[in-house]
Amino acid sequence: MHMISKDVQVDIHARNEHVAEHVHEYLTARGIFTVNVMGAPGAGKTTTLEKLIKLLPGTSYVVEGDIESDIDTERLRQQKISASQINTFGACHLDAPLLHNAVHTMEFAAPGILFVENVGNLVCPAEFSIGEDIKLLQVCVTDGSDKPYKYPLAFEKADVILLSKIDLLPYVDFNEEFFLKGLRHLNPEAPFFKVNGKTGAGYDQVAAWLSKRASAVTGAGQEK
Amino acid sequence: MHMISKDVQVDIHARNEHVAEHVHEYLTARGIFTVNVMGAPGAGKTTTLEKLIKLLPGTSYVVEGDIESDIDTERLRQQKISASQINTFGACHLDAPLLHNAVHTMEFAAPGILFVENVGNLVCPAEFSIGEDIKLLQVCVTDGSDKPYKYPLAFEKADVILLSKIDLLPYVDFNEEFFLKGLRHLNPEAPFFKVNGKTGAGYDQVAAWLSKRASAVTGAGQEK
Repeated sequence: MHMISKDVQVDIHARNEHVAEHVHEYLTARGIFTVNVMGAPGAGKTTTLEKLIKLLPGTSYVVEGDIESDIDTERLRQQKISASQINTFGACHLDAPLLHNAVHTMEFAAPGILFVENVGNLVCPAEFSIGEDIKLLQVCVTDGSDKPYKYPLAFEKADVILLSKIDLLPYVDFNEEFFLKGLRHLNPEAPFFKVNGKTGAGYDQVAAWLSKRASAVTGAGQEK
Repeated sequence: MHMISKDVQVDIHARNEHVAEHVHEYLTARGIFTVNVMGAPGAGKTTTLEKLIKLLPGTSYVVEGDIESDIDTERLRQQKISASQINTFGACHLDAPLLHNAVHTMEFAAPGILFVENVGNLVCPAEFSIGEDIKLLQVCVTDGSDKPYKYPLAFEKADVILLSKIDLLPYVDFNEEFFLKGLRHLNPEAPFFKVNGKTGAGYDQVAAWLSKRASAVTGAGQEK
């Protein structure tokens, strides 16, 4: 966005923040805790939704953000997980107005967790709040251990970080020490979980953490 | 970019195209054939440069585009490949003015191929010409076979497509038929190569194709 004047940038972000606040209020009032799920293309974000939603005790809602296609929404529906699709038709990230339109067509019959899967992109989604409570960042071992150094904003802004595809560790050069050093330099606090989408290993801890973190919004119904 | 008015968008693209034409003329006049190397984070773009440059008979030049860090430039230098670094400090893609600044600080002592590794992002780089002769798109099997359906513009605009990390095919669910169907629907013509960054398999064909394609610009010196 460096070719756009600073004034236009500030205006875009200010407008987005304004709508994001409204979306957050709207969802919180309904007992909905919102998770902005971010990561590069192919990080395994949809697999994480499949695994987590089965482990969470309360109601879950899903919004799928994609430039085009409804492949992930269909995939979730086959697992009996109801999901709404946002297509950005070219845009590289979700923003608060897009989520605003989506949530106003959804019915939130019970308190619960709303997962919003952002466009697969390790850069732009981190710049825009969509009215979420937390940002979940997912990265995978096959993408290499230098990602925090090259894409710092996503790591800096994440409230929880998942490292996925750990079943492939024996076949790739992934230096976990180097990865964690870069990650902790940017973000000393966020919980970090290793997960395996094939076996489901690691997701029980993520679900427990998330359930606890969401409970202040979702109320006792979401507690185990 | 959907929150920016159409007029601003048109202006940004028109200005970029104008500079891109100048960059292209400048490079062509020096016998430099330019390859815009695009792909998601961790697709293996830098590995491809390492492998290809060793196989190419003539002179190669490299510009590394990253949001932050000079990890890839250092990595190439360790292989005795000279590379210049562009840091975008937040911006999600390279554009023609950024490459313009970089090439005016470089010395092109002989005709050859200039590889410009774009920011790791399967969305935004495809929207901006940087003055290149061709766009090389790299995707890897670990990112899944649905990428053409979800990120169509990059596949549509590519002049050559590499599928990397094929050594990991036995360990992931990659449906090559589904991938190629999506790819060919968007781009029926672009040459498609499968490569293995670990063993180097497949890169000889890419180098031969590239060398031939570049020869009209680089002259006989680049031919095998």
